[in-house]
Amino acid sequence: MTKMILAAAQMGGIQKAESRDAVVARMLALMAQAHDKGAGFIAFPEMCLTTFFPRFYVEDRAEFDHWFETQMPGPATQPLFDAAKAYGMGMTFGYCELTPEGDHYNTAIIVSPDGAITLKYRKIHLPGHAEYEPERTHQHLEKRYFLPGDLGFNVTRSQDVLMGLAICNDRRWPEAWRELGLQGVELVCIGYNTPSQNNLSKSEGLEQRLYHHELSICAGAYQNSTYAMAVAKCGMEDGNHMIGGTIIVDPDGFVIAKAETEGDELITAEADFAKCAFGKSTVFNFAAHRRIEHYGRIATQTGVKLPE
Amino acid sequence: MTKMILAAAQMGGIQKAESRDAVVARMLALMAQAHDKGAGFIAFPEMCLTTFFPRFYVEDRAEFDHWFETQMPGPATQPLFDAAKAYGMGMTFGYCELTPEGDHYNTAIIVSPDGAITLKYRKIHLPGHAEYEPERTHQHLEKRYFLPGDLGFNVTRSQDVLMGLAICNDRRWPEAWRELGLQGVELVCIGYNTPSQNNLSKSEGLEQRLYHHELSICAGAYQNSTYAMAVAKCGMEDGNHMIGGTIIVDPDGFVIAKAETEGDELITAEADFAKCAFGKSTVFNFAAHRRIEHYGRIATQTGVKLPE
Repeated sequence: MTKMILAAAQMGGIQKAESRDAVVARMLALMAQAHDKGAGFIAFPEMCLTTFFPRFYVEDRAEFDHWFETQMPGPATQPLFDAAKAYGMGMTFGYCELTPEGDHYNTAIIVSPDGAITLKYRKIHLPGHAEYEPERTHQHLEKRYFLPGDLGFNVTRSQDVLMGLAICNDRRWPEAWRELGLQGVELVCIGYNTPSQNNLSKSEGLEQRLYHHELSICAGAYQNSTYAMAVAKCGMEDGNHMIGGTIIVDPDGFVIAKAETEGDELITAEADFAKCAFGKSTVFNFAAHRRIEHYGRIATQTGVKLPE
Repeated sequence: MTKMILAAAQMGGIQKAESRDAVVARMLALMAQAHDKGAGFIAFPEMCLTTFFPRFYVEDRAEFDHWFETQMPGPATQPLFDAAKAYGMGMTFGYCELTPEGDHYNTAIIVSPDGAITLKYRKIHLPGHAEYEPERTHQHLEKRYFLPGDLGFNVTRSQDVLMGLAICNDRRWPEAWRELGLQGVELVCIGYNTPSQNNLSKSEGLEQRLYHHELSICAGAYQNSTYAMAVAKCGMEDGNHMIGGTIIVDPDGFVIAKAETEGDELITAEADFAKCAFGKSTVFNFAAHRRIEHYGRIATQTGVKLPE
């Protein structure tokens, strides 16, 4: 069975004025560190080429099209693919995708060590809202700038590991984890940009946000017996603070590596993917224990229906 | 909105030789304590009238029918209903149910302060196995002695609170929580009998078992914005040790009360059910954020299907 050193590449804030080239240079530096540590796979955050622009409102969405990639790899991102190949290292990162049809998605990809894109995921659980809402401490307009992902939750076998993706808010939704778990996932990578302040609750700050983040990742990993890397873009970005808390979690739901800063920081841990098998064949042996005849509401009922 | 003092009534082991009357006397003492603390609702463990007999193998299952209740209330349990009425206190407890048709279930009920049974739940996620397995450190024969529950996951409005039930191993399955969450649940009660040792893994002992327990409860409460009471039967029982760790958890997924012993112990906390509304109307506003078109595997595919 496969053992591999996993690298989670936390990134500090990316300011509006920062160019793609400058950001890619930061990412290349983290890849070089990962290579020095013998990493076989590196995970970068959600939307890691640009600032988290959904905190800003523009009436004409097209004004923000410059935050989106129309090619992957494109001229600015090709060096990442080249480095992956040179190091023989797989990678995942998130970016904003503008399709030839003009559709906008919050996207992440897995790239194999030969430079091929082996999985594309488009964020399904978009948080926030679509219109300007003055009662919020800051805007969170993901529902304005992105369509909900249309590709589902998929798992790919890459580097002999069953890998799946989710993005940011997806991590709070056990449905996302279970869709991946039902495909035998062994490594879930989740990038995030999470404001340190709940924009609708003054009492919910940094500590509580970090707790909910870690709780969701550890539960998802444990309940699907999978490794997970949750990777922050964090710290101050355009005057807004985002949580750090990048972690690597094992299939028992234990944190095995954790970032200490709110800036560019690489953490690593060795994964022994054979360890996924125990949970998957015992307490979370889905074939033996799941009772789908009682899960009907989950896939047929979107919102709450109170009992009569 | 409703505020209520919740009481979680942890129970120490019940030995084989202990009579129903002796157990009910212990429960009545805990109810009296709860009444003294002003509790409006008290939760007892899974299978709280008897020892956890699925750790023992008998070839002829009928030999164990004496652990099952054929009436509820019956002569031994009527005093619990009388006490609930006298105190004006709702309650939930778990027991083994033998139906007139001869079917066996691991069951829990909610009883309203007027003594009516307002909800019956039959455990759906039965752990363990159906035949004797010598490689285990101890047997866990729930699949031998019980049928999987046939009533689904339901929520009842009792004492102006939307209450739901799950039992023991159910707490590890986000499907159980979400089925209840989709009915607006505000209080989930889960009794458990959890061996301190994973019977297939010598390295998984008390601390890890307690961690997985608490992780599952806190995640389920947070992700459905509901209060939860998780109540142990614990300590030494017929020479086997079970985890304690009884907790009351708030809709933010924080532990607000926790048992300190492994014996009969009452813990209480005040619930302000209005606090469930914030999560249900923001980050876990299911109508706004769930994407059921991508949850198809969850309700149609029982076991793992690896990607092609």
